[in-house]
Amino acid sequence: MKVCKFGGTSLASAQQIKKVANIITADTSRRIVVVSAPGKRFDTDIKITDHLISLADAALSGNDTSSGFRQIMERYEEIISGLGLESSLLNDIEEDLYNRLHSSRKDAGLFTDTLKASGEDASAKLVAAYLTATGLSAQYCNPKDAGLLLNDPPAYPQLLPEAYGRLAALKDNEAICVFPGFFGFTASGVLRTFNRGGSDITGAILAAAVKAELYENFTDVDSVFAANPRVVDQPVSISHMTYREMRELSYAGFAVLHDEALMPAFRAAVPVCIKNTNNPEAPGTMITAERDFSEQPVTGISADSGFSTLYVSKYLMNREIGFGRKLLQILEEEQISYEHAPSGIDDLSVIIRSHQLKPGQDARIVERVKTELAADDVHFRHDFSMVVLVGEGMRHTTGLTARAAAAIARTGANIEMINQGSSEVSLVFGILKHDETRVLRELYQEFFAPVYAEL
Amino acid sequence: MKVCKFGGTSLASAQQIKKVANIITADTSRRIVVVSAPGKRFDTDIKITDHLISLADAALSGNDTSSGFRQIMERYEEIISGLGLESSLLNDIEEDLYNRLHSSRKDAGLFTDTLKASGEDASAKLVAAYLTATGLSAQYCNPKDAGLLLNDPPAYPQLLPEAYGRLAALKDNEAICVFPGFFGFTASGVLRTFNRGGSDITGAILAAAVKAELYENFTDVDSVFAANPRVVDQPVSISHMTYREMRELSYAGFAVLHDEALMPAFRAAVPVCIKNTNNPEAPGTMITAERDFSEQPVTGISADSGFSTLYVSKYLMNREIGFGRKLLQILEEEQISYEHAPSGIDDLSVIIRSHQLKPGQDARIVERVKTELAADDVHFRHDFSMVVLVGEGMRHTTGLTARAAAAIARTGANIEMINQGSSEVSLVFGILKHDETRVLRELYQEFFAPVYAEL
Repeated sequence: MKVCKFGGTSLASAQQIKKVANIITADTSRRIVVVSAPGKRFDTDIKITDHLISLADAALSGNDTSSGFRQIMERYEEIISGLGLESSLLNDIEEDLYNRLHSSRKDAGLFTDTLKASGEDASAKLVAAYLTATGLSAQYCNPKDAGLLLNDPPAYPQLLPEAYGRLAALKDNEAICVFPGFFGFTASGVLRTFNRGGSDITGAILAAAVKAELYENFTDVDSVFAANPRVVDQPVSISHMTYREMRELSYAGFAVLHDEALMPAFRAAVPVCIKNTNNPEAPGTMITAERDFSEQPVTGISADSGFSTLYVSKYLMNREIGFGRKLLQILEEEQISYEHAPSGIDDLSVIIRSHQLKPGQDARIVERVKTELAADDVHFRHDFSMVVLVGEGMRHTTGLTARAAAAIARTGANIEMINQGSSEVSLVFGILKHDETRVLRELYQEFFAPVYAEL
Repeated sequence: MKVCKFGGTSLASAQQIKKVANIITADTSRRIVVVSAPGKRFDTDIKITDHLISLADAALSGNDTSSGFRQIMERYEEIISGLGLESSLLNDIEEDLYNRLHSSRKDAGLFTDTLKASGEDASAKLVAAYLTATGLSAQYCNPKDAGLLLNDPPAYPQLLPEAYGRLAALKDNEAICVFPGFFGFTASGVLRTFNRGGSDITGAILAAAVKAELYENFTDVDSVFAANPRVVDQPVSISHMTYREMRELSYAGFAVLHDEALMPAFRAAVPVCIKNTNNPEAPGTMITAERDFSEQPVTGISADSGFSTLYVSKYLMNREIGFGRKLLQILEEEQISYEHAPSGIDDLSVIIRSHQLKPGQDARIVERVKTELAADDVHFRHDFSMVVLVGEGMRHTTGLTARAAAAIARTGANIEMINQGSSEVSLVFGILKHDETRVLRELYQEFFAPVYAEL
């Protein structure tokens, strides 16, 4: 059996939901359907989830909620009438939203989550009703009844391992199970949402639980591209990649799937296929544990900005056992996680994501490192980008670093940092942010230029 | 005034000491002379210091010491008669060595140090006597009387900061001061030696104390070479480099000066010149704080083997604040200092010098990391070399990494690690040891091939 997950744009309108139904009808092995909340119909549209967040904000700050409530219900009404479904469903959804809006606001985060989760929940009810209307046997599945149990806050939200056993029962359902993504419940029955990549994770969890033959992740692109199409003109599609490649690419700016979303599928060795709801005939991008990588060493190139470097130098640092550890400990106490820590003999740089720094915190960190570690020179530099080349074939290809470094040199950009040596599937270059676009294009040209360019 | 330090080969025989005297006579600003113990006269010769270590070992293990004692005295006798000095000096040296040999053996380390230090001490007495005999006003200086005060064990041996004041008085000596290198005394009068680079450090300390215009370090080569002459055929000389370049080169295998030896001169901004006792007319290699680096971006290339890599991977490692710190803490508890720590998203490698690992310790570290950090995959790999390109001009040269990586690729070697990003004067490549020689030669060819090769 297959688990299919549909993203927000695949559920944005009655017309889109009809495409979803066609996709499910076309393959009888598609037995579990995970849905996001209805997304944008057009570029400037507002997603249901964003409407729900505004509604929660209005309620929490004591402002009027009636117009926000009405806007949301109008979206549902348009979908239900477009699908020719009965108005009793609209009443159900309205009553549910009303009850959520008037639930306890004591825990503001929980209140907001409760409202947000209603988007996926309503979406699942809509899709189940429409599939039933087209003559399929389909059923809305409640995550609480199904047993999607999450740990308690404040720990990072994760599925309780014992939940897999109960979720596995979904594979015995006679009807197609339509499952809302993004949320589950704690053991004591309190709603809890996934931090990031919400519905993708739900799909991956269910695919793992039922040991699906395939986890199909339907979105609005034909495939994952080898580089950001907003920067590189018509980048090539990636037809096949490994979990590790996906994760490394996601790390630095690839937005198709959140890097964590595949974890459950990865652990259960369920293959993933990223497909397009609007063009389901396209083969999409397959993601598996292994792949043949003989043809192309580099699978994709991603780039992300917003990095800062903490530079520390101290004479005879390399004599001092524990210096690096103490520096990382200060960052840990400051709640800063680090990305890379290239070291010289008497100096050490720590590269972090800049957004973690609160106002004034960089000065405090510099001061602490200077006094607590008796360092000679300590300073921050900002506005760096990381460009990451990813490919399982890279470790078998001599001269690849040279090609990449030469391509960067052709743009006139300076390589501020290189990190090669731990992960065998990626090569990270630190550059100044203002060089990022040029570097990404040149690297793409170097590794993905059409073959005829070399003739 | 200039401080001159002469290494062991410069003092190995009467003939060599005559060269030293000529050098001192040739420049009246050479007022402080620091000496090593007499070294090797020919390749298979045994240094006085090694004779003294054997003597100490024999004494400590209760073996016969008379033949060892006699061998040492024969060397001194040969020098004294070769220089035409009076035999009373030989009696002095013999009495001193006898007293040291019969001093307390309770602290074996101190006993060995006491014997070893007699080599430099005798050497200073010989040189002072010979300079006097040639008509110069010269005097043996006792480090205890001069105030060369070191901290107490077990801390790493370092000069007490207050010692500089007293040592500064050496500049007012009317006679040329001949000073034994390698040792000093604690505040309570106990002899203490420098761990490494002994006589070089003494020279640098005195040069700093008297604010010398130049610290001349006389050895047996015309200059520092841009690469190891045992690997690269006739490498070019380095005429001028900075302290930082010297230190980065010393780090990975450059044996001319120990990386720490220049610290006091560096701190006091005293320029250093490395010269050849056997060819004092050669200009040597100047080492200063700054230099003009417009002509040649790479100053030297060094390589060192004996590195191991601890590889650790754990899914979602990059989400876990403190993972890197905890890993380094385990190494710190195991008394292992690390060189580099390149990181991927979910993996981290720590590169260490292999000699630190005691038998069985690598297995224990792997086990600790697996259990204490719940890592997925942990293993050691051994037999790596680090190749270091050093040059102040490197940070101003775009494309240099590409050239270096391309050169390495031409040898067919795989780049296992790159560390660029912290120190601005060096670029480190990790490779397999069995590729080291080929890589070093190819990099030398790339950056130092004669200009006509490019015409």
